[in-house]
Amino acid sequence: MSRLIRERFRQRADPFAAAFVSSAAEDARLVPYDLAGSRAHAAMLRAVGLLTAAELRAIRSAFDSIEREWRAGKRRLTTADEDVHLAVERWVTELAGAAGAKLHTGRSRNDQVALDLRLYVRDQIDALHAAIGALQHALLAQARKHTETVMPGYTHLQRAQPIVLAHQLLAWHDALARDAERLTDARRRVNICPLGAGALAGTSLPIQPRLVAKALGFDGVFTNSIDASADRDFAIEFVSAAALLQTHLSQIAETLILWATAEFGFVALPDALCTSSSMMPQKRNPDLLELVRAKTARVNAALVAVLGIVKALPPGYQRDLQEMKPPLFGAADVAAASLQAITLAVKGVRVNKEAMRRAAADPQLLATDLAELLVHKGVAFRTAHGAVARLMRHCAERNTSPAAMPLAQLRRFAPQFGPEIFRILTPEASVRRKRSPGSTNPAQVARRVARTARK
Amino acid sequence: MSRLIRERFRQRADPFAAAFVSSAAEDARLVPYDLAGSRAHAAMLRAVGLLTAAELRAIRSAFDSIEREWRAGKRRLTTADEDVHLAVERWVTELAGAAGAKLHTGRSRNDQVALDLRLYVRDQIDALHAAIGALQHALLAQARKHTETVMPGYTHLQRAQPIVLAHQLLAWHDALARDAERLTDARRRVNICPLGAGALAGTSLPIQPRLVAKALGFDGVFTNSIDASADRDFAIEFVSAAALLQTHLSQIAETLILWATAEFGFVALPDALCTSSSMMPQKRNPDLLELVRAKTARVNAALVAVLGIVKALPPGYQRDLQEMKPPLFGAADVAAASLQAITLAVKGVRVNKEAMRRAAADPQLLATDLAELLVHKGVAFRTAHGAVARLMRHCAERNTSPAAMPLAQLRRFAPQFGPEIFRILTPEASVRRKRSPGSTNPAQVARRVARTARK
Amino acid sequence: MSRLIRERFRQRADPFAAAFVSSAAEDARLVPYDLAGSRAHAAMLRAVGLLTAAELRAIRSAFDSIEREWRAGKRRLTTADEDVHLAVERWVTELAGAAGAKLHTGRSRNDQVALDLRLYVRDQIDALHAAIGALQHALLAQARKHTETVMPGYTHLQRAQPIVLAHQLLAWHDALARDAERLTDARRRVNICPLGAGALAGTSLPIQPRLVAKALGFDGVFTNSIDASADRDFAIEFVSAAALLQTHLSQIAETLILWATAEFGFVALPDALCTSSSMMPQKRNPDLLELVRAKTARVNAALVAVLGIVKALPPGYQRDLQEMKPPLFGAADVAAASLQAITLAVKGVRVNKEAMRRAAADPQLLATDLAELLVHKGVAFRTAHGAVARLMRHCAERNTSPAAMPLAQLRRFAPQFGPEIFRILTPEASVRRKRSPGSTNPAQVARRVARTARK
Amino acid sequence: MSRLIRERFRQRADPFAAAFVSSAAEDARLVPYDLAGSRAHAAMLRAVGLLTAAELRAIRSAFDSIEREWRAGKRRLTTADEDVHLAVERWVTELAGAAGAKLHTGRSRNDQVALDLRLYVRDQIDALHAAIGALQHALLAQARKHTETVMPGYTHLQRAQPIVLAHQLLAWHDALARDAERLTDARRRVNICPLGAGALAGTSLPIQPRLVAKALGFDGVFTNSIDASADRDFAIEFVSAAALLQTHLSQIAETLILWATAEFGFVALPDALCTSSSMMPQKRNPDLLELVRAKTARVNAALVAVLGIVKALPPGYQRDLQEMKPPLFGAADVAAASLQAITLAVKGVRVNKEAMRRAAADPQLLATDLAELLVHKGVAFRTAHGAVARLMRHCAERNTSPAAMPLAQLRRFAPQFGPEIFRILTPEASVRRKRSPGSTNPAQVARRVARTARK
Repeated sequence: MSRLIRERFRQRADPFAAAFVSSAAEDARLVPYDLAGSRAHAAMLRAVGLLTAAELRAIRSAFDSIEREWRAGKRRLTTADEDVHLAVERWVTELAGAAGAKLHTGRSRNDQVALDLRLYVRDQIDALHAAIGALQHALLAQARKHTETVMPGYTHLQRAQPIVLAHQLLAWHDALARDAERLTDARRRVNICPLGAGALAGTSLPIQPRLVAKALGFDGVFTNSIDASADRDFAIEFVSAAALLQTHLSQIAETLILWATAEFGFVALPDALCTSSSMMPQKRNPDLLELVRAKTARVNAALVAVLGIVKALPPGYQRDLQEMKPPLFGAADVAAASLQAITLAVKGVRVNKEAMRRAAADPQLLATDLAELLVHKGVAFRTAHGAVARLMRHCAERNTSPAAMPLAQLRRFAPQFGPEIFRILTPEASVRRKRSPGSTNPAQVARRVARTARK
Repeated sequence: MSRLIRERFRQRADPFAAAFVSSAAEDARLVPYDLAGSRAHAAMLRAVGLLTAAELRAIRSAFDSIEREWRAGKRRLTTADEDVHLAVERWVTELAGAAGAKLHTGRSRNDQVALDLRLYVRDQIDALHAAIGALQHALLAQARKHTETVMPGYTHLQRAQPIVLAHQLLAWHDALARDAERLTDARRRVNICPLGAGALAGTSLPIQPRLVAKALGFDGVFTNSIDASADRDFAIEFVSAAALLQTHLSQIAETLILWATAEFGFVALPDALCTSSSMMPQKRNPDLLELVRAKTARVNAALVAVLGIVKALPPGYQRDLQEMKPPLFGAADVAAASLQAITLAVKGVRVNKEAMRRAAADPQLLATDLAELLVHKGVAFRTAHGAVARLMRHCAERNTSPAAMPLAQLRRFAPQFGPEIFRILTPEASVRRKRSPGSTNPAQVARRVARTARK
Repeated sequence: MSRLIRERFRQRADPFAAAFVSSAAEDARLVPYDLAGSRAHAAMLRAVGLLTAAELRAIRSAFDSIEREWRAGKRRLTTADEDVHLAVERWVTELAGAAGAKLHTGRSRNDQVALDLRLYVRDQIDALHAAIGALQHALLAQARKHTETVMPGYTHLQRAQPIVLAHQLLAWHDALARDAERLTDARRRVNICPLGAGALAGTSLPIQPRLVAKALGFDGVFTNSIDASADRDFAIEFVSAAALLQTHLSQIAETLILWATAEFGFVALPDALCTSSSMMPQKRNPDLLELVRAKTARVNAALVAVLGIVKALPPGYQRDLQEMKPPLFGAADVAAASLQAITLAVKGVRVNKEAMRRAAADPQLLATDLAELLVHKGVAFRTAHGAVARLMRHCAERNTSPAAMPLAQLRRFAPQFGPEIFRILTPEASVRRKRSPGSTNPAQVARRVARTARK
Repeated sequence: MSRLIRERFRQRADPFAAAFVSSAAEDARLVPYDLAGSRAHAAMLRAVGLLTAAELRAIRSAFDSIEREWRAGKRRLTTADEDVHLAVERWVTELAGAAGAKLHTGRSRNDQVALDLRLYVRDQIDALHAAIGALQHALLAQARKHTETVMPGYTHLQRAQPIVLAHQLLAWHDALARDAERLTDARRRVNICPLGAGALAGTSLPIQPRLVAKALGFDGVFTNSIDASADRDFAIEFVSAAALLQTHLSQIAETLILWATAEFGFVALPDALCTSSSMMPQKRNPDLLELVRAKTARVNAALVAVLGIVKALPPGYQRDLQEMKPPLFGAADVAAASLQAITLAVKGVRVNKEAMRRAAADPQLLATDLAELLVHKGVAFRTAHGAVARLMRHCAERNTSPAAMPLAQLRRFAPQFGPEIFRILTPEASVRRKRSPGSTNPAQVARRVARTARK
């Protein structure tokens, strides 16, 4: 633990305790943000006269060296450093001499770490926005090819009604659009500069937080120093948004895993995305997708961690907040990597149209069409539903289909059935007859693909 | 389980299974929403010609009766009802005869429950907005009285720097403002009408979802029927927002619990909000606040439940979604009641200004002021920090204070100290010397109270 | 809130606050335990001379009346009662007069609620033990019928190797045996009597906790009054065990849901356990199983709640502990009902042996057998694995199988292949050739079914 | 990704996908276990004739080299390795030539990773047992010094009754004893050898799992290959036990944080365990304790992760299980480090007996003693409670104490009060008068310290 701030104590820090409280391991990724924030802070100190021009030059030159050496892997954080802030201050002091001792004027690690984390989260949001866009693009590219590809739609994992594959792909696209929107909303609350709050009460020094905020591209400045120095809502909101995003990815993963089974056979992953077994030579396993699914539990757990940490915390900075870093960083990493994994899978997947069509031809899937046909002919829906239910039971028990039954026999279930019934008994007819907005009707779906792609 | 939709089966439902799958217990609170949605749906069916005027009249009259009887407690859901939707359809059919059998035309329980839940969540958001406003109002009312009330500010639960009480109250106000904003953002995504999605694929009947959406005050209509029928993102986002809101309440609760201890003695709760002990006659316990704190874990758990349920669900409605109701409803209830509990506490609490002032007079609290005084005199901050740290160690070890030391002795720690040091060594001077924006400076705080109250 | 213990206060309880802190809603299920505990406590008070014989008679008679009226639904807890303990004391006092005022001698609600909860959890453990036994019995009954029923075993949801159905059923049986064992271990820690700890410090009255413990069937008595009055480890351990048990049920549910799809077609649920769709007349949905799956997330959430509540609680009873009741009770209810649901499903499910056999005949499933055949002939396993991997790729790309290839062609992949290869290329041969202990070999499996059933 | 097992594929692995599925980063700590397991496996293969003596020698010599190089840091896992198992096999093959290709005979990575994890968890349990013992020892050492140190006991964080400090320390000791017991129970279920289960179905090769189990110190061998290859209950149970243990540590941490505030002032941490502030020179912060508190949320989150991962997994190994490693390892690390941190704190803490005694002298703390005094004189407890409640209200409102009131005035509250009342009105008298078993009576506590230390 740095001696820099241990004049208050007679004893040196206990080595275990020093390593236990150190955030050096997590802080590596904050180094660029700490440097950027410190540059802005130093420029502000100069602007308000708390640094001389020469001191600022010395500090800037130190930052330049540190940045170079950091990138080159020549500087490292160790558990001897309590955190990134003291490490950077120590480096600057080593390089810039007396000027370095002025760098921490008018700030505290409390507002400083809040700044670093906000810069980090802002970057992560921007990166996720781009990655979501890439996945949406891949979904649309596949959708464009499959606006006429019929397959069974499922509810309760039981075959429900015929749909076109593109309709499913657009459903995922829409869910991702909400994720992107949620991140945009969160970004507004992230992009507020906390520097200048000090430890919790502000300062008697003539600092100007607006200058720092402006230099770092923030939309606004904190309004209450107690709140600003200990608020981590922005991080929790980000993890919440990541959890929902990851949930959507888990649902895509699960669907592709099911579709890639021998039993469904709707899709095949390319070799490049498959793994095999060390014992069973024939295996082509979708580990990539399974891991996206499993990682969802880890993002949910990250949310439990960040919420559990701040529950019932008293006001002002508590060291507990340090423990939010691993779940926050973990959630960001998982979401970014999982988006890339699913994008690869969506792009690479080979669709077996014949298998989909074959499954969609299951006559049970057309039950709703038959009931709606009766409604078109004036039968009350609930009555029609009952009649068709009995017909489908009849077919299932005899392993037959309405299309294979003579009209007379069909009419025993509902006398309103006429010969037109035979025209609607295909999955293609089913999807084409859909006319409600937002339905799986192929023409509608095609229009929506085109419109969405233009955005 | 209602016979209404069991024509497909030969066997009656197993009674245990029927009760196990029934959502009757949770669904009571959805009855008003199911009725409102069904009214809008019936009106739309009439507008597109799927109901006659007479049928609509019969259905409306049935709704009127049901509503009356529901309010009077004469109708009840039982586990013999699979859910609110089948119960309402059954009731309408009993009252409206043949017309009732047409009510379910062009819809499914899948889009219907999505509708009911969106109407419910929208109402909850509006209620939470109002309750947040009430708490903010109570905080401002207290803040107005305490812009000059000095007390110790804490970090790590150790005394840090003097603050004014109003500054702390405003910190909570600001956190709640973010909660309100987050709920506003969520409301935009809630307020999209899903009715018309059908089971998952839309319908061949000429329904017009926009009519329903308009009648129910929605801002928009779903764009993809698969997504619309199974999407519960809006519920998860609501629970996320409730969890963060509840976290803030837990932090206020914790703070008041600490402040109400014999040791802090900063506040006292009124008798009306205290509970006693069955064994210890002297007890005045803050159970109200402890329960707000504990309920936070339950809202966090609700978030785990809703996220855990939808993880890796395949597309289309799964009955799993039913299990989101208890955590969703629970989170809404807890947040609303906890807001009211904290509002009562904030309004009722008696502040002990003397105890706060006494604690704020702890000389250790003024260490930062001393260091900043040296900075004003040109000492580099890190150097000043070290000098004052040694001084504070000296004072702590001898149980003395800088104010009690002769200037000559003080100068042994930092030769720059002059006689003006004695003017700044009070908590009142400390807060008044703060000049950074957003600081605890009493004049600034007073202005902010006034400005915030005007909004 | 009961006046009984509000002499300390001038003000009446605020009605909202009273309702907010009341646990009446949760406590209904504790009434029998509170009565049993109070009976034992009263008998002990008599034994040590703190009650007269007449007072004990009066109190017992009051208990008798209360018990009768409770069972008959004539007594109810309301939110005007702070909790079950004060309600019961009030009832006893109303019925037994002055003697009632002595009932609370030498105890506190803190040790009393700990007692009630331990009695409750002990009962729940015993009930779960019985229910686990019933499910294990159902699994064994099915296993007995399917020791020769071949089907594909899966890893990564990809077909892996042939197994017999009974082997899978026994795998679930084994997991449940661990659950039962875990509950047995937990029961030892539950079955310690906390009564006599008082509020936290014990008492100066001559009570004898061992008498109470003995009367209530406990294995031991608490050793530290602070620990005993606030310890809820037993509840958390129970919820942990329930979460793992429920996880196993979710895995059985998921498997049956998959097997019941049209695509797998391995099993069918009986009509009595299926639900249909309000819109799609053909639907036979496994809602029962989906709900078991979803409820797992709720038990996991219950665990988050109970752990989150006690995190960082200071010593001694805090009202936070009250909030553990709903998740504790909920977890117990869910686990019990889910066990019953899965038992029904396992008993009722119809197995489609032909579909299983057909899938098991997939030649890719025999790849490991081919590799092991080569090992028997002296080929190093990794070499054999590579050769067979190339053979399976060849077969997959040409949609053929080793059984359909001439020996000469097979030998191009591994010259060691001989004519015996054709004898092993059936799923029945595959399972029979397994000889390692614990394998899917049908004779072994049959022996294990027989042995397990005897236990 | 290792080519070793990719003969099934035409394409090379996609580099991103290979890194995404690799567990190399987590697996470093499994290397020693993988080597130990592989040594036992190789010895068994020799014993059953699947390896020659020369092959075994070659393999062992390879293991020796690998072990040496691993310890020396010369071998490293990289994301080019799919996992530890393939890396070790590759290394052996490089060193042992043809013999290496036989190492994987009769096993799969599925049973192998299960083995590695069980060996790892067994070691962690043993390490936690030792660390718990060390903390218990530190608690007893402090307790021995404080069997007569009176302090206020608290409930609801309000002063409740006087206790002796040693009684509180023993309460923590007892909770830790349960943790140790729970780990012992878990260990029985961990210590079952899964090797020999193969991928899921066993093998046709003549392996002998009992030999491996014996060599590695297991208590038993798996009974069902499907269960054995995918069961992670042991890991979840371990994380559950760690979460409860960590919860206890969080409660000790919270208590010490409170006691170390300026307001309580009951204890002081040594300088060596404190951290300071970068801005506020006087600060002595208990970061060590705050981090133990916060890390509790992370262990709870680890439990959410492991349970969330296995929820609804179908039978057989799924790659999802890999994602259990980080939360499992993390929970073990956090619990071990937190035990050490709390042990340091308990050993190092300086107790301020005077501050404790001063707080314990608060007259409100003796209310229960007064009520019990009245019971000794024949007053019904509830009546006595009411009388003393009114007395304590009187004292609180007038800021006086019973000891300062004349007897005549006290008798207005309860005529039974006699002059002996003045003898009991000290905290020392209060604790000494306790006579119930397990109470805070100093003589009892001292006996219990002595007895516990002997164990």
